[in-house]
Amino acid sequence: MLAAMKKQPRSAAKPRNAFYAQSGGVTAVINASAAGVIETAGQYPKHIRKVLAGRHGIVGALEEDLIDVSRESRATIAGLRHTPAGAFGSARFKLKGIEQNKAEYQRLIEVFAAHDIGYFFYNGGNDSMDTAHKVSQIGAQLGYPITCIGVPKTVDNDLPYTDCCPGFGSVAKYVAISTLEASLDVASMARTSTKVFVMEVMGRHAGWIAAAGGLAGRGKDDAPHIILFPEIAFDRAAFLARVKKVVERVGYCVIVVSEGAHYADGRFLADAGTKDAFGHTQLGGVGPVVANMIREAHGYKYHWAVADYLQRAARHIASKVDVDQAYAMGKAAVELAVRGHNAMMPTVVRKSSHPYRWTVGAVELAKVANVEKKLPRDFITPDGFGITTKARRYLSPLIGGGEPPPYECGLPVYVKIKGVAVKKKLPPFTVK
Amino acid sequence: MLAAMKKQPRSAAKPRNAFYAQSGGVTAVINASAAGVIETAGQYPKHIRKVLAGRHGIVGALEEDLIDVSRESRATIAGLRHTPAGAFGSARFKLKGIEQNKAEYQRLIEVFAAHDIGYFFYNGGNDSMDTAHKVSQIGAQLGYPITCIGVPKTVDNDLPYTDCCPGFGSVAKYVAISTLEASLDVASMARTSTKVFVMEVMGRHAGWIAAAGGLAGRGKDDAPHIILFPEIAFDRAAFLARVKKVVERVGYCVIVVSEGAHYADGRFLADAGTKDAFGHTQLGGVGPVVANMIREAHGYKYHWAVADYLQRAARHIASKVDVDQAYAMGKAAVELAVRGHNAMMPTVVRKSSHPYRWTVGAVELAKVANVEKKLPRDFITPDGFGITTKARRYLSPLIGGGEPPPYECGLPVYVKIKGVAVKKKLPPFTVK
Repeated sequence: MLAAMKKQPRSAAKPRNAFYAQSGGVTAVINASAAGVIETAGQYPKHIRKVLAGRHGIVGALEEDLIDVSRESRATIAGLRHTPAGAFGSARFKLKGIEQNKAEYQRLIEVFAAHDIGYFFYNGGNDSMDTAHKVSQIGAQLGYPITCIGVPKTVDNDLPYTDCCPGFGSVAKYVAISTLEASLDVASMARTSTKVFVMEVMGRHAGWIAAAGGLAGRGKDDAPHIILFPEIAFDRAAFLARVKKVVERVGYCVIVVSEGAHYADGRFLADAGTKDAFGHTQLGGVGPVVANMIREAHGYKYHWAVADYLQRAARHIASKVDVDQAYAMGKAAVELAVRGHNAMMPTVVRKSSHPYRWTVGAVELAKVANVEKKLPRDFITPDGFGITTKARRYLSPLIGGGEPPPYECGLPVYVKIKGVAVKKKLPPFTVK
Repeated sequence: MLAAMKKQPRSAAKPRNAFYAQSGGVTAVINASAAGVIETAGQYPKHIRKVLAGRHGIVGALEEDLIDVSRESRATIAGLRHTPAGAFGSARFKLKGIEQNKAEYQRLIEVFAAHDIGYFFYNGGNDSMDTAHKVSQIGAQLGYPITCIGVPKTVDNDLPYTDCCPGFGSVAKYVAISTLEASLDVASMARTSTKVFVMEVMGRHAGWIAAAGGLAGRGKDDAPHIILFPEIAFDRAAFLARVKKVVERVGYCVIVVSEGAHYADGRFLADAGTKDAFGHTQLGGVGPVVANMIREAHGYKYHWAVADYLQRAARHIASKVDVDQAYAMGKAAVELAVRGHNAMMPTVVRKSSHPYRWTVGAVELAKVANVEKKLPRDFITPDGFGITTKARRYLSPLIGGGEPPPYECGLPVYVKIKGVAVKKKLPPFTVK
């Protein structure tokens, strides 16, 4: 815990409401952060009266569509810890710069004022940290000072200043386990059938998720045999030669490919120039593109998988470390706020990898906003196709442990909020 | 247990070796059947001396590449129960009719004779039951009587005479949970982003796996909102109209589509006539085809997933019922054999659905061979897009319970056989 956070809670004149919103692509554990915010806010009644959540994130704030979280049962809030995706609804909606879009910022402040909102907790990635930062600035400018704290969330793990980002550990665990399991399948079939398996994973700009696939194997001939990162320009000839070599030596080849894999000129592999029967551009995944490339070059029988949302929603196999950190980030956000900090984001600070120990830190939003943390080059083997020992040391603790949801009739029991709306006080405002 | 199985083990002149092989597409629990065969064989030393496994299934028998299972530790054999895919290697290799291909059948019998194999346990689906049946016939014809017992296995659940088929329950559980989790994700995003999610599942000829996706929701507006079965000819206009209606009412639409979905004329949806930039036919999944179809008609933003091998290898989330049944089928196969039965397959017999109770039966291979069990029409709603209460009653118990593998460093610990080969005694024979 940062020294800053050890400060005593400031004495509050009177408690005010807090606004909480989920932003961007959701994760298996973003609701655990919500639970951290809500349960911790309940421990500071002198500072925080109610938590009001934006229905569909910041859109809910703009449209004054606020969910009264006090109307949810304790059991529902506790259940958020084991429920994937965004229980309050998320939004892909980036507020533009203050100059271009002052009306929306003013509307936000009007809604906050109308509902006596003194705290803004924004649970998202790079863009969202930028928004939270802007809200803290505009609030001050417009004479409505508001405490803005970001709660980090992104499966891409590309937020700077935090050792890792809640959401990533669980995707990493899903991808590592799925790659391991599918690899055993291919190994079984390779003698007479499938020789190549391609697994497409998320991560358009950073290869953290693809790297996690590498945890599936340790030995020289263990799968995955090839990982394609967005950080390494794709070299078709080198790749195809490697596939052939692996199939000839091992009998089969497992490839993990990031959706962001691209050629040296920046063109995504997924943009294959493919047309359908009507001449429309076929928007396919990179998985089938890579598989077809191999078939054309070598004729190997292949299978491919695109896990898409499955990977980031897979709460059933979430990492306990990730769940704990997601909750801790929500909790720390509230603690930062009631201690008088503003425009900050709590962070995960790694103390040691073996044994894995971590604590909570904090960073200014201004530093985090819009900065992307890519996979360091020394996490990738010199040939560009695998992960190094250094990468394993970083990644391995993040997939540790499980905290399975309760089950009923063979299915996880995920909670659903009632979502009771707070009565509107302002004229309507519709987000397009 | 069938009355037939209650017979006492026949008195054996002297113990003989047993051959075990895995065949066709593997599953999350086929190794549990292997464990059932191997551990049960060990309980009948007067009948069975050693279990010799075919490396890569029947190919191993033809090539005299036999694995001496007695060289594996007890812990490894026990660990097969929680290890997905085919630990001994499987094969997509169908022996042709006896008349067209007598040489291969003769070779099989030569290998069996050379290694004193008196029992043939064949772990597979429809085709494999046909092969096991033929081997029992040819053995008798060639003066080498051999006890042939099929061990049912197929994720497709299309074997007749058994209430369900080991491998299916775990895929069903994976598909139901994945659909549920991804649906929560789409629901979170729909306000400003993804409105349609398409999940492609296995099952080229029968819609059992697609039907299992229906377990994800119960209420009228719960996902999945549309299931596309191979049993129902695809009606593009009706489908697109339904998607629109669902998006307008619910805000988003989740679709589970079987890889075998096809038009009335038999053409698969996946065969989209798509060409890549080089004019080659693009072999894509049906998931992206359906998603594109929706985009062209309605312009909705979509995501799609193709789980492919992930679904059938997902031992981490296997159904306990399925694991138990897979083991029981392996065990019963050996019990049938030592009791003097031949050309049989053990079956799962459902005694009741609520509470779920089942027992072991048996059926003649001649009846099972090459027969496909499709989803009954009354398991599908009249509109062709959903599952009925009757389907739920059948499916729900099969995904019950879990039996997670052990974990280390965040990953399941799956066993690997040593695979020590038995010394060859015959001239080489290579399977092309």
